[in-house]
Amino acid sequence: MPAREGCLYGVGVGPGDPELVTLKALRLLRAAPVVAYPAPDRGDSFARTIVAAWLRPDQHEIAVRFPMQPGPLPAKLYDEAAAVLAAELGRGRDVVFLCQGDPLLYGSFIPLLSRLAPRWRTEIVPGISSLTACAAAAAWPLASREESLAVIPATLDESELAAQLARAENAAVIKLGRHFGKLRRVLGNLGLLDGALYVERATLPVQRLARLTAVDPAEVPYFSMALVRRIGPPA
Amino acid sequence: MPAREGCLYGVGVGPGDPELVTLKALRLLRAAPVVAYPAPDRGDSFARTIVAAWLRPDQHEIAVRFPMQPGPLPAKLYDEAAAVLAAELGRGRDVVFLCQGDPLLYGSFIPLLSRLAPRWRTEIVPGISSLTACAAAAAWPLASREESLAVIPATLDESELAAQLARAENAAVIKLGRHFGKLRRVLGNLGLLDGALYVERATLPVQRLARLTAVDPAEVPYFSMALVRRIGPPA
Repeated sequence: MPAREGCLYGVGVGPGDPELVTLKALRLLRAAPVVAYPAPDRGDSFARTIVAAWLRPDQHEIAVRFPMQPGPLPAKLYDEAAAVLAAELGRGRDVVFLCQGDPLLYGSFIPLLSRLAPRWRTEIVPGISSLTACAAAAAWPLASREESLAVIPATLDESELAAQLARAENAAVIKLGRHFGKLRRVLGNLGLLDGALYVERATLPVQRLARLTAVDPAEVPYFSMALVRRIGPPA
Repeated sequence: MPAREGCLYGVGVGPGDPELVTLKALRLLRAAPVVAYPAPDRGDSFARTIVAAWLRPDQHEIAVRFPMQPGPLPAKLYDEAAAVLAAELGRGRDVVFLCQGDPLLYGSFIPLLSRLAPRWRTEIVPGISSLTACAAAAAWPLASREESLAVIPATLDESELAAQLARAENAAVIKLGRHFGKLRRVLGNLGLLDGALYVERATLPVQRLARLTAVDPAEVPYFSMALVRRIGPPA
């Protein structure tokens, strides 16, 4: 056993623009002997891409590969990933786990945290979420004064999605992708379609803003969001 | 008229820890000839305090003073503040308006934006919100997979607060202050009190975490949040 066990840092690196990384994330990232990140089956990790300019060749990198598929992943995949990170912590090495957006607002860090936090020291560094990044790109107030805000996944079934949107004053609907057609139908039925805004890949050079009615459902990626308001914009 | 009009930047500076400022916020702040910020009637601006170490004597500072009082402020106050900022923009000077947390998630920038955006160039830089900062401090997953998240002001009347909390899977209740007793009552009636967490002044040296049941209602400041979950923590 090493004299000191490692600490697991769950570090938000924001929505995509490297300039939206915080000073704290950058300091921890530079100091870490081990940098881990979620990645698809094949190809690059989006979280890694955001901070690639600051990574050094002497840092040990661990790509935690999760298949991109609908529905929950088998628990075994998270168990295995947690074991790989635990092995580094047991060797006394701090691990920075990069999270696109924020570590605790959806995302694959949450099931790793629940497995590792009971045993290992952990610290979480919040990141700019896609929620506030999309709002900033669109100059769209998310909520004001006594208003509430609902963050709703478009992956819900149609009746549940409709029920949640019907009672929301302000809503951000996330994880659009192949669920966009359903969302559009629901918003149309609720009379919320006209004011709704669509934001795709906020803060990246390929960012796109459009009225929701102008979007082709066949072209909607997972990293997109709909901003919806039942009430008028704040005075 | 100057050759070029100024641009208004609404810049989020995060929840309090200066290390949670983004690289972009820091770059814009350092480059700005005019730095404005909300401030109470008397005393220091919290947003300014966060970035005080980076301000220079040659920058023109504008404290936009809003009285701390319950309920909405008179529109005239926002009109006057907007006019002061517009005068700088008209002189061709860029204005960075500092926003604690995020510029578009509650906060006094929203009514200024609605007055200035129709006439002047504006850009918004998202900041770390108190929402994700409190969650990080508590290692509390805000939402996972197909769950929704509700952000709810404690300032709502008791029946409306109860109705919104009754149907939320995950909730962050903000603006506690003198509304804490009401919130505690509502959560007790809904059977949600035991798991609820209280976070005060997240990321500051005086940060406090407690079970909601352990908090003295007489000591709850405005900058506090309750984290509530109807469902168990994510697996």
